[in-house]
Amino acid sequence: MSDDEADKPFRVGLLGHGTVGAAFADLLPRQADRIARITGGLRPELSGVLTRSRGSFDQILESSDLIVELIGGLEPAREYLLAAIRAGKHVVTANKQLLSHHGEELWDAARDNNVQLRFEGAVAGVVPVIRVLQESLAGATIDRVHGIVNGTTNFILTEMARTGETFPDALAEAQRLGYAEADPTEDVNGKDAAAKMAILARLAFETPVHIDQVRYEGIEHIRPDDLEYARDLGLGLKLIGTAERVGDDGLSVTVYPAFLYPGHPLASVNGPFNAVTVESEAITEITMSGPGAGGPQTASAVLGDVISAMIPPASTPPATESLRIVSDVMSSFYLYLEVADEPGVLARVAHVLAEQNVSVKSVVQKGLEDQARLVMVVHPVLESRFYAALEEIGALSVMRAAPRAIRVIEEEFV
Amino acid sequence: MSDDEADKPFRVGLLGHGTVGAAFADLLPRQADRIARITGGLRPELSGVLTRSRGSFDQILESSDLIVELIGGLEPAREYLLAAIRAGKHVVTANKQLLSHHGEELWDAARDNNVQLRFEGAVAGVVPVIRVLQESLAGATIDRVHGIVNGTTNFILTEMARTGETFPDALAEAQRLGYAEADPTEDVNGKDAAAKMAILARLAFETPVHIDQVRYEGIEHIRPDDLEYARDLGLGLKLIGTAERVGDDGLSVTVYPAFLYPGHPLASVNGPFNAVTVESEAITEITMSGPGAGGPQTASAVLGDVISAMIPPASTPPATESLRIVSDVMSSFYLYLEVADEPGVLARVAHVLAEQNVSVKSVVQKGLEDQARLVMVVHPVLESRFYAALEEIGALSVMRAAPRAIRVIEEEFV
Repeated sequence: MSDDEADKPFRVGLLGHGTVGAAFADLLPRQADRIARITGGLRPELSGVLTRSRGSFDQILESSDLIVELIGGLEPAREYLLAAIRAGKHVVTANKQLLSHHGEELWDAARDNNVQLRFEGAVAGVVPVIRVLQESLAGATIDRVHGIVNGTTNFILTEMARTGETFPDALAEAQRLGYAEADPTEDVNGKDAAAKMAILARLAFETPVHIDQVRYEGIEHIRPDDLEYARDLGLGLKLIGTAERVGDDGLSVTVYPAFLYPGHPLASVNGPFNAVTVESEAITEITMSGPGAGGPQTASAVLGDVISAMIPPASTPPATESLRIVSDVMSSFYLYLEVADEPGVLARVAHVLAEQNVSVKSVVQKGLEDQARLVMVVHPVLESRFYAALEEIGALSVMRAAPRAIRVIEEEFV
Repeated sequence: MSDDEADKPFRVGLLGHGTVGAAFADLLPRQADRIARITGGLRPELSGVLTRSRGSFDQILESSDLIVELIGGLEPAREYLLAAIRAGKHVVTANKQLLSHHGEELWDAARDNNVQLRFEGAVAGVVPVIRVLQESLAGATIDRVHGIVNGTTNFILTEMARTGETFPDALAEAQRLGYAEADPTEDVNGKDAAAKMAILARLAFETPVHIDQVRYEGIEHIRPDDLEYARDLGLGLKLIGTAERVGDDGLSVTVYPAFLYPGHPLASVNGPFNAVTVESEAITEITMSGPGAGGPQTASAVLGDVISAMIPPASTPPATESLRIVSDVMSSFYLYLEVADEPGVLARVAHVLAEQNVSVKSVVQKGLEDQARLVMVVHPVLESRFYAALEEIGALSVMRAAPRAIRVIEEEFV
């Protein structure tokens, strides 16, 4: 597909081959053509993979332009990253525990050696909260960061609220669906979220924050009762991380189960999703949400970091695609008809729609003096066919006004 | 405050002094100390401001390291930006019309001259959608982008749904509150949103998209009836921009009023807020939301771009702040008490709370055989005082189980 001969290889050494590592090793070659195009001919390739049983770190370091660390844990991840940084290589990691314990040492080393240390995958997966705090909001004085940064607990709390089941039952369900690990301890007791909040607090407030300085609490003690009574008060429960400025020179970093009012931007974040809200006087607030974990999602965040290390900053690559702009697409529609209130009207309208292959999803009919309102939603259909039907309907003798149509966006991922 | 003598100036030339330009000129000096700290001693300063009546572009260009263009419109903005780029200066702009007409020419020039052209402020203000599409999602194949990218129309539709008023009345209200300009034509007819969607489509699909290729429709024809009947079907109306891949080689870019089901991530975006959802098979979806416009917000996005041009990529600056980590903060709490069902219980609990200055916001009491449940939410209070009250309450003879307390997060911006 692409001009392979002209491409220059960009060698990526991968440390770790667990869920995220394997997903990254799978994703990189599939996106190599695209990346070569947008980087103007730099083609990423895996130069080596270090697992518990295979590979030599020194050899991989030697033969790589950039090191991706997905081993997790403190050692030897810390030692490997420091060695790579000192060897002048850019590094990408998704290791929240490491950064919440030894972040300053690693960031200092990266600055001293003039290499990039990127870690978008460490917090909230593909939700770009690291980059936004580091770059987009560099010009804002931040007052508070609220986050739902653990997908396992958010899934469990969503299930408990939806079904009324107990914490152990909802946890078992989460494990069955792959949203909780076999050993869920650090997810449900809040420690995973605490590590992530330490990192976010460090970036938002430019103050060193160690995970031991984060006060945290889990959700093991939450009972269905808590959710039920709170619902009477209009409240929903989430495990919320908070980092906030206190007075002139104070900073509080916590992870607690907390109730939210329905208007809060995090209140509608359900299931295994993550979300982070950043508050600042200048900007009011920004909220970002998306899938918080999962191999492919975190791997995608890691790959975004790798690409950023490959291309010059803020370069808009040439428009290498030339998709054809199309105008006749599939859409769902809402249709509002003012019709005579007489027998057979719905049948005539339905007949026209059926002839154009327009399928009705729902109908509301209301009488109004000698007229009626016929309001319906139709399933996705090629717009040209829908408008052909609309023209025919408009010409029916039972119509009392021109038909009104508005598009409806179907839910994709709910 | 900061070490002025050691700082090196970074000279920012400002073109335009309207709402956003004035907000930027105000923000830059206020953040100069912070920026000098995080950039390791680069202190931004305004080297000149070009207005309709004052200043010389050539002189400003000569004396600047970076040019910020906030004039708006096509010419002379295009000519100035091209001149700055060709002079080897980084440029930052918030000009959506210019980029949706002449984007390829400007991006090509920036690549050819090896300078940065940043434009976060052009779409959705401080919501970092440009950076996320260009950088975070560089590794993902995007299927669809949905956006509420015009705050004026979102405010008007929110008002119409809330109050049942007509479009002209809601528009007048928006103008009164400063959410709509004196001449709102390009906001309400969809053209403003179309320019923004052309830019997002270009970035998401790497295909050149001119604003003339975007099919758009406004909200002038929306009637309160449309909102009312649709509510019966569970639908809410938004002005939605959509850029989506069609088949293997097609791209559709549109702006239409559209109904959303309540579960859609954009359904809860109300008032003058903007939001963008990016869908991709690998990541499912990311949603970003925040204030879409307003001088200070857009100025903050512009300043984020300026800072990004000043610092090396993905550098985590040293932790220059040393906020003290505090542990006793103000929190609101939900309190769940199992108590004897006898007279005076509420009074005794309330007395303990009052003694610790804990103020009750709402209470629900429910009888349950010989016991009762007393569930309340208290206003924010220093946590140490709340826990002192909790201990006293736990010791009351009327308690039938240990009291249960969970934090409640107050709404800040609703």
